[in-house]
Amino acid sequence: MKAIVTVMPKPGVLDPQGKAIGRALAHLGFTDVGEVRAGKVIEVELASSDPDAARRTAEAMAEKLLANTVIERFSVEIA
Amino acid sequence: MKAIVTVMPKPGVLDPQGKAIGRALAHLGFTDVGEVRAGKVIEVELASSDPDAARRTAEAMAEKLLANTVIERFSVEIA
Repeated sequence: MKAIVTVMPKPGVLDPQGKAIGRALAHLGFTDVGEVRAGKVIEVELASSDPDAARRTAEAMAEKLLANTVIERFSVEIA
Repeated sequence: MKAIVTVMPKPGVLDPQGKAIGRALAHLGFTDVGEVRAGKVIEVELASSDPDAARRTAEAMAEKLLANTVIERFSVEIA
């Protein structure tokens, strides 16, 4: 199974990368741009064929390595 | 509307960040890990209230700035 872990800065946490992208989009002529937030996505191939087990594994990976849960939130999608 | 642009390395393109995450997961005891790919996700608030227009805008943003389409593929989700 494939686990897709999406990691985003928590609301209220400063996101300089998102701010820089927003400014660059404005410079390129995209005028109707509001807030921009930048995060990361990690796709992990798992040997497990049980979706529930795969989700638990991916959540443990996110807690231990992929996300800094003090400043980031994560979501897991199993495909 | 919010546009969510996901940018991933194209299949076959070397992904050293994904490889490093895969090795780190193995070191942490996650043994059933196959290939790992690392990408980015950009959430953009758009003033437009037309989903089709928002999608076209987000695709133009991805082509011009958010993705390097030589080595990366992108997908757009409108929420």
